[in-house]
Parts: sequence; C-alpha cells; structure tokens
Amino acid sequence: MADNVQKPANHGYELAKGLFEINGDDLVLGGLPVRTIVAEVGSPAYLYDGQLMRRAYRRLADALKGFASIYYSAKANPAEAVIRLFLEEGAGIEIASLGEYRAAIAAGAAPEHILFAGPGKRRAELEAVIEGGIGEIHIEGVDEIGRLRSIGKPVQASIRINPVPTVQAGAMRMGGKATAFGFDEEDLDAAIAAVASADNIELVGIHVYGGTQILDAEALLGQWRHAITLAARVARTTGKPLKTIDLGGGLGIPYYAGDKPLDLDAVAAAVPELAALLKSEPLIAGARAIVEPGRFLVGEAGLYVSEINTVKQSRGVRFLVMEGGMNHHLAASGNLGQVIKRNYPVVAPARMTAPSDAPATLVGPLCTPLDTLARDAGLPDLKAGDLVAVLQSGAYGLTASPINFLSHPHPAEALVENGRIEAIGR
Amino acid sequence: MADNVQKPANHGYELAKGLFEINGDDLVLGGLPVRTIVAEVGSPAYLYDGQLMRRAYRRLADALKGFASIYYSAKANPAEAVIRLFLEEGAGIEIASLGEYRAAIAAGAAPEHILFAGPGKRRAELEAVIEGGIGEIHIEGVDEIGRLRSIGKPVQASIRINPVPTVQAGAMRMGGKATAFGFDEEDLDAAIAAVASADNIELVGIHVYGGTQILDAEALLGQWRHAITLAARVARTTGKPLKTIDLGGGLGIPYYAGDKPLDLDAVAAAVPELAALLKSEPLIAGARAIVEPGRFLVGEAGLYVSEINTVKQSRGVRFLVMEGGMNHHLAASGNLGQVIKRNYPVVAPARMTAPSDAPATLVGPLCTPLDTLARDAGLPDLKAGDLVAVLQSGAYGLTASPINFLSHPHPAEALVENGRIEAIGR
Repeated sequence: MADNVQKPANHGYELAKGLFEINGDDLVLGGLPVRTIVAEVGSPAYLYDGQLMRRAYRRLADALKGFASIYYSAKANPAEAVIRLFLEEGAGIEIASLGEYRAAIAAGAAPEHILFAGPGKRRAELEAVIEGGIGEIHIEGVDEIGRLRSIGKPVQASIRINPVPTVQAGAMRMGGKATAFGFDEEDLDAAIAAVASADNIELVGIHVYGGTQILDAEALLGQWRHAITLAARVARTTGKPLKTIDLGGGLGIPYYAGDKPLDLDAVAAAVPELAALLKSEPLIAGARAIVEPGRFLVGEAGLYVSEINTVKQSRGVRFLVMEGGMNHHLAASGNLGQVIKRNYPVVAPARMTAPSDAPATLVGPLCTPLDTLARDAGLPDLKAGDLVAVLQSGAYGLTASPINFLSHPHPAEALVENGRIEAIGR
Repeated sequence: MADNVQKPANHGYELAKGLFEINGDDLVLGGLPVRTIVAEVGSPAYLYDGQLMRRAYRRLADALKGFASIYYSAKANPAEAVIRLFLEEGAGIEIASLGEYRAAIAAGAAPEHILFAGPGKRRAELEAVIEGGIGEIHIEGVDEIGRLRSIGKPVQASIRINPVPTVQAGAMRMGGKATAFGFDEEDLDAAIAAVASADNIELVGIHVYGGTQILDAEALLGQWRHAITLAARVARTTGKPLKTIDLGGGLGIPYYAGDKPLDLDAVAAAVPELAALLKSEPLIAGARAIVEPGRFLVGEAGLYVSEINTVKQSRGVRFLVMEGGMNHHLAASGNLGQVIKRNYPVVAPARMTAPSDAPATLVGPLCTPLDTLARDAGLPDLKAGDLVAVLQSGAYGLTASPINFLSHPHPAEALVENGRIEAIGR
C-alpha cells in the first residue's frame, strides 16, 4: 500500500541472487542479460537457463549416487530443446500423452528410455507408442489392461499403485485418497492377477506416486521406502524379479516467501539405507529405481518476462499492467490449484540494483481481476517499457496456461546457454 | 458416494430440458443429436447451438425494447462463426485485443460498430485498429491518453470509469475497489481534463463496468442507473452532448445448483424508467445506451462433450475418466476464479432417459487431481465409449483453457444450426 512505511515484501531478489548471475543492473540468464535476450526474442517471453537445468539434474544425480535413474517428466515443460538437454545429461523421459511421446522422439530419446503414465490413455495412443517402441507402460486401471490385451502386442508394463493414506506428502496429494491414478494399494493383489491374465503384458515393475511439490525430504524418503516395500510385496506375490521401481516425482522447488528448498543432503544421506532396503529382498535386488522429477529440474531455470504496458494508480494501489498475464502464466495468477493466493517471486531484471521500495500490483492485459500475478510486491519505481520477470517459471508455465484467452499474441520462448539463444517453436 | 441412498444430485438434466430438445435418449443440439454431431466432428468437442444464441440475443433485445444497443463481447467466445451470427442479429462487437479485432473484421463487422476496451492496449494494437477503423476506443488510463495523443490520428473515445463501491454486484466485482480497469470515479474530473488535453481525441461517451456473472436484475439495474447519472455528470462537465453510454456487460447465466436465471422481465419493466432518466438530462438525451454481454449470449448455447475413456473405482468413488478435461475446460474444473468448487451441470447426451442414479466423479486425462470436472454427479451407469456433456460451456470455454497442457489433442469445435454443422477452425 502507498502509505506502508515498511520495506514492501518481495522474496524475488534474494531468490534471483541465489540462482542467477547479476551484472550491474542486469539479471543474467544463460550468459546474457535478460534485456539483451528480450531485445532479440521479443516481449513477453519465457526464458530458460540451460546451465541451471543441468545444475539441477547434476545435483540430484549426485545426491542419488547411482541408486536411482532420473527420468525427466516432460509434462513440466515439453519443449523439445528442454527434453534434448536432459537426454544429453543422461535422463530417461516420462511421458503422459502421445504428444509428449512425439516430442521425446523428436528430441532424440531412445524409445526404450521412455515411460508412459496417465489415467486416460486412448487406444490409439497405446497403439502408436507400442508401434514406435516404448520402455514401459504404467498401467492405471482395469480398462487399460483390457485395451492392451486387445492390442495384443508384447509390452513391458508396471502397475501404478495409489498408496495408503499414511504415506502422503506434498502440496497436492495424488494418492492415498480416492483418485483416478493407479490401483488402490488395498486392491494390489487383484491388480497383479488382472495383469497376469494378459499373456502379452510382462509385469516388470511398479510405479508409486504420492504427491507433488514436496519440499520435505523426510516425506519424500518415506514414500520411497514405502514404494520399495510395495515392490518387494509385488515380486513375492508373482514370484518373479522386478526390473524397475518407479518412486515417482514430486520433488518441489520454493515458490513463496518462507518456502525452504528440498534438502538434497538429507536425500543423499538416506541413499545407503534405501539401497540396502532394495538389496534385502532378492527378487528386487536387481531392480533399477527410478525418480521422475519435472518441476525440480526445470522450474528454477525459467522466468517469464514482460514489458510493462501501463502504470496506473487506483484507490491507493499502484498497478503495473504487463503485456501478458494469466493467459501466459496461469500458475502465477494463483489459478492453478492454489487455495491461497500468494506472490510468486518477481524482479525487475534490468534494474537489479535499484531499491525495490515501490510496492506494485502486477496485472496482465486481460479484462478480468483474475489476471493478477502479484499483489503489493516490492519493486523499483518502474515505468511503461520497463521489464518485469516472474521467477520459478520454468515448469507448468506456458503449456499450463490459457494462451488464447482474449486472443493476445503468444509469448516467445527460448533456451539460453553459454550466451547462445535457441528459440523454441511450438 | 457409493453408499448414498439419496438420488445423487445433478441439476444438469433439468437445465438441459429447459434449453435443448430431447428426442428419446438423445440430447438434440441445433437440430441434430449430439451423438450424431460427435460422430462427424470427433470427440472431445465444443458444440454450439446457433438457434440458442439467437434466442438469447432476441430475448435480451426484446427486454431492452430499443433502449440500448447490444454489443457482443467477443472475449466470451471469439470464434468467427459465433461473431458472424451476432452480426446477423444486428449486434455490434466489443473487443479486447487486436486478435479479437481481426476476428470481428473477418466475420464481417463494420469497423464503426466495434468498441475496443482493455487495460493494457499496446501501441501497435491502437495503431492497427485506428488504421483499420474503429467505432470507439475505451480509454482506461493516463498512459493510454498519451499513447493516443502521440499516434496523433483522430479517434472517438469513451472514458472507462471504475465506479464507487456502492454499486457493485456480481460474482466477481470488477469495479469499486482498486482495479486496473478505467479511471476511479473519484478522479473523473481529472480524467476528463486529461482526455480534453489531447486534440485528436473526441470524447464521445463513457463506459461503466461494475461486475460479471450478475444474476440479480436489481443489482444490474442499479449499475445502469448509476452509469446514466455518471454520463450526465460527464456531459455537464464538458458542456457537450455524449453519443454513447456503455452500461457494461456482466449479465449472468445459471451454472450451479440453485442459481436462478437473470430476470429479464424485471429488466424490461425498468426500461421506461431508465429511458426517462436518460431523457432528463438534455446533454445525454440523444445518447445511445449500449450493453455488452458475452456470457449471457453464448454461455447456455454451448456444451463440451467427451467420450469416456476409462471407468474405475477407487476407495468408494466411481471415476469416469474423460478424453479431455481441464486442458479443454478450465472453468468447469473450478480453476478459473471459483473459490468454492461446485459441479457444472453435466448429462449423458445419448442416454437422456436412463435413470441418473450412478454417482460419478468426472475427471480428465491429465496427471493431476486438479483435472476434476464434477464430483459425485448423478449420471446413468456409463461405460467407456459413452458420451458425457458439460452444459453452460459456450462462454469462457475453449479459449479460456490451457489447451497444450500435457500435449493432448485439441478438441473439435462446431456451430450447429438447423441440422447444419459448421466446423470452427482456430
């Protein structure tokens, strides 16, 4: 508020300094000032820092110490350039649609390193990925078993299990309660029997996904332990060894003021115990554990940047109207499942040293009050033509947004690394 | 819930019977059974009944008895075929972006019958519509006055006014509090002076928009009265007559169980008094009043229909997994500003006479629990391959949805009238 004498809150600057290089007034992404990139690709734009994606991947790989393979969950950001980057790092790819399968193949993924999960796989999708080659299909229900049986070709499959409520965690629970995802843990024996009844389906593993946006390492590790226990149970039931145990994704990143990053040291410290747990059951001792993060690998590497179109004052509130808003970035508007609307971290990427003492409410160009990206955020005294960036925007950004709402132009999108800008075409 | 002995709630069937023809088991839209249309255009699809759009337009026009012109707010559904239909009925078009301007022109709108509102109009947009011709530009702030002045070409403009808090209504207030929309009523004299300072801007009217999704006729009429009073004040301040008074849109439709439709008889009954109010101030007596509904004209005419991909049971809840979900219909998932998640009306459009006694939770194919379109809705005992339709989906449907989320195919879209299917290409 205009009469607020406290320094207005904005956790964006602290976060930006921890992630990106700052050079004078400039936030530097992928080796170039954001304003230089915007001058080339245009505004508004989603910009991704390739090196930050690699860093996130390597930090996680280091913490896992070979205990688990990393599969990039393409739904977080299905741009081919992004998928290609993780392939270069050695990742497999987890997909949730034929569209993502095609993006993964186009990016150069080997079919055998692709996993396919999702509660509503269409027959035509299953046929297409089986025809093109697929590592594993994660079966989510009885209808899907019937569909695979009727397709008739040999497939390797895992059973997706909706775990019991005691092992839930994360900002949004995806298991434990009634869900459309996988088989309830209580019904596991029936699920195993149903899969076994289809001659062409080879049961090679399980997939347990208990939550998303998990920042608590202990909660995550609890799920992983439970998944290993379930894998042992499945293997004992069938009497056959499992090849894979998909521990799920759900690794979170800090969005809001006060969020603490996931403690990878705690994950690393638990790896020997998890590995020992795996080895303790002979039928799964040879299985490969898999984690399938999306947000954790790309979220912090991306920002959404827009020119300010208009500055205006209304009843004591200063509004910065951006050229894009919820049409480009639904999550930042608080309309992607958030119960409480809190500010995403924001900065002025070409005025990083200016005092951020001018509280502003950031809105987009749409004719609806829903199009608000941050309220009373501490920012420099910006004017029309200045840039504003929303951080933590690499995951569930552009593709999770209603881009045709009010028929505005779509944002540009680019991956930047070592000073080289790679435009992303959709 | 499965053990619920009451008939499960679903207001969809009653609503469908009031809007559409039912022929045996079939819901009939635009003269054709929904299942026949889906067989032609594919599933999932948005289907719009042209005759229902015309009926909504004519009912409103009849209630207004010539007191106000109707401008279709293209943001509700910017398909050219839809815009063309309202042009045929005699409507003007209200746009909020250059994209909508192009759609209106492509549909055959005369430039002088287009109004342009929106809080973040880019200079290039203003230049393009002035070059192409535009009826009025609704000025939303001081920056915009400067932009129009620097463009320098003659324009007719209205001042958009953010009214005082006493005249708010609707499910979502768009004025009264601090907003990015228009000039605060308290600052009206300064706004008039600022517009007057630009020689090329002719102030021809005002625009007052106080809310959206208004179902209370008295609240709507209160806003209209206030707008007329404000118009008189502006005209007296400038000493010049006004040509237009844009009363705003905001006319709602019933979505949720218990919603009562807007009482157009009450609107009609108030028209003589409103007309007299207009005539009582000589400087606005010749002004043309405008209403600019979007949702009211198209919302009830549209439905979203999808095949069921999978039926599954989890912990006592029966899930119907559709081929499309929040990626196609964000509003129905409760993620477009709704604070409380309530069910949109849903029906099985090819089983209209079957008892709707099998409660089901309708979900889409995305890997997120956000992708839930209705909870425990009373529906027939449906199977994979059956159709489900979400009603009241003609406005803020496809273009307000994150269509690339999880890279699934986009839905088909068609306008159906007198048994003729017109496919809509985007």
